[in-house]
Amino acid sequence: MAFVYSRVIRFHETDAAGVVYFANVLTLCHEAYEAALGAAGIDLKTFFSAAGGVAVPITHAEVDFARPLFCGDAIAIILTPKTLDAHRFEITYELVYEAAQEPSSVVNPDSSASTAGSQLQPLARALTQHVCINTQTRRRHPVTAELVDWIAALTDAEVSSG
Amino acid sequence: MAFVYSRVIRFHETDAAGVVYFANVLTLCHEAYEAALGAAGIDLKTFFSAAGGVAVPITHAEVDFARPLFCGDAIAIILTPKTLDAHRFEITYELVYEAAQEPSSVVNPDSSASTAGSQLQPLARALTQHVCINTQTRRRHPVTAELVDWIAALTDAEVSSG
Amino acid sequence: MAFVYSRVIRFHETDAAGVVYFANVLTLCHEAYEAALGAAGIDLKTFFSAAGGVAVPITHAEVDFARPLFCGDAIAIILTPKTLDAHRFEITYELVYEAAQEPSSVVNPDSSASTAGSQLQPLARALTQHVCINTQTRRRHPVTAELVDWIAALTDAEVSSG
Amino acid sequence: MAFVYSRVIRFHETDAAGVVYFANVLTLCHEAYEAALGAAGIDLKTFFSAAGGVAVPITHAEVDFARPLFCGDAIAIILTPKTLDAHRFEITYELVYEAAQEPSSVVNPDSSASTAGSQLQPLARALTQHVCINTQTRRRHPVTAELVDWIAALTDAEVSSG
Repeated sequence: MAFVYSRVIRFHETDAAGVVYFANVLTLCHEAYEAALGAAGIDLKTFFSAAGGVAVPITHAEVDFARPLFCGDAIAIILTPKTLDAHRFEITYELVYEAAQEPSSVVNPDSSASTAGSQLQPLARALTQHVCINTQTRRRHPVTAELVDWIAALTDAEVSSG
Repeated sequence: MAFVYSRVIRFHETDAAGVVYFANVLTLCHEAYEAALGAAGIDLKTFFSAAGGVAVPITHAEVDFARPLFCGDAIAIILTPKTLDAHRFEITYELVYEAAQEPSSVVNPDSSASTAGSQLQPLARALTQHVCINTQTRRRHPVTAELVDWIAALTDAEVSSG
Repeated sequence: MAFVYSRVIRFHETDAAGVVYFANVLTLCHEAYEAALGAAGIDLKTFFSAAGGVAVPITHAEVDFARPLFCGDAIAIILTPKTLDAHRFEITYELVYEAAQEPSSVVNPDSSASTAGSQLQPLARALTQHVCINTQTRRRHPVTAELVDWIAALTDAEVSSG
Repeated sequence: MAFVYSRVIRFHETDAAGVVYFANVLTLCHEAYEAALGAAGIDLKTFFSAAGGVAVPITHAEVDFARPLFCGDAIAIILTPKTLDAHRFEITYELVYEAAQEPSSVVNPDSSASTAGSQLQPLARALTQHVCINTQTRRRHPVTAELVDWIAALTDAEVSSG
């Protein structure tokens, strides 16, 4: 199951072109990642300060922009993690309008397939890759048990929301 | 009634001292302002792009910090607007832990007054002052009807939430 | 002498109203503070991570906005620190157009006093108050020697630049 | 010639892990892009507000992180643009320590090739892709003459700095 994070675009995220500043789309995705970790009971303060001796820095990020986002837009970010190897995992993100999350508006028998499709057309897609490291040695560390569980829980069939 | 905006502190809002970067506290307050306008049916994209010919820039802001905020902290921002004169209004903000919003945890007959008091002790307080201007002439414009209504609705007795 | 920090306004600092987002003006001021500390030989990484056992959190900040700032504007921030008491100091900031920094354009015998005055009219003014604390006990700590020296050096007659 | 943008890492760019927040690395790259346009005499306020009827949104961005960046680090961003087709161009960015920019420290006959190599090892690499569009029709527009000139000037042999 993917995790879905809902969010209204805020004014400080926009720029003088009137839309969300490009790098802030990755920040929105990271917020979804934090919300997904928090929903699994992971303590965010400890996790992100690497107080437990393991840090999980991002080694690669990319993002494709399909449509501009405006202040006040209600969006949903659909997050799906995937294991890459013993030390690394990646997360993909799809940003869609919040309305597209409503099953009734998508699986409407009266609407044509193309309409439903355009509603589901992502506003943006992103990807982040993460590596677990020991904060003392700065060397690779196996993905921690709590992250293994978190990834497993979000790669099952159902959809979670938070 | 004041408006209450609930929010989890996100990683990008923190700095290398491990807590929320000072200026981001004002950004959190502005988010509460946006949420309060949105809850009153005001279109945020139009309002903040001044597409209607009237802009409402901030002329003064101030903030007092009592306690640091950490990634993952669940906070609530209590927002109260007030008319200053025909062209200007101000908004005060109190940031408290989300738990302190729960009446049951505050009005607990078994807890001492000092405990309840410390729970309600704001993490931070802020203030913003706003002036309505005509975007063509850049001169002062009377506070718009929708803002007059919005201020009136939030200065009544009850508490709203969103 | 005050410290002068020069800076071009960047796109990410603007918002959908086309100008610098209000809270980012305080961020610009903090950059000037960092530059002034760095120019005095203070190691910024150590200072701001409080690795030395003393932290200097901001307890109060305020800002007045006179004119909007646009992407590409070249500005200068004039920073002046002042001791408040044994544990606290404050810094005032004046934001002006970079051109106003040119002595030739200001002390021009051909220009009227009013012209020179308008050139010096700040775009914004801000203030931050800081308290020194021991990071172990979280109690007040005397302003450190390096900060005492830094404040003294910047309250003399001349003007520094960096 | 590539364009080189020099910059000190500021506190607000860091997060509670003590280093620059990942998405802010793309913001640093965009600053370099703005500085390179400005150095070519392009008016940034007009360019980024798309006041001329042509906008140049980013359609894709990616970034690889090799080493963490700390508050106070002096870095240089080496920017190189490239035409993709009639409507699109891309920019690559290499972030290195500012010292590595000093020819004397790099082309030191006494230092081993591996030392010189490690000094030149980028801290991060990034890429942005841009498409020119007509802001009225939202359809593709040929890359403007000023951008064609800008790309040409920066793909010659020499190195510019600003």
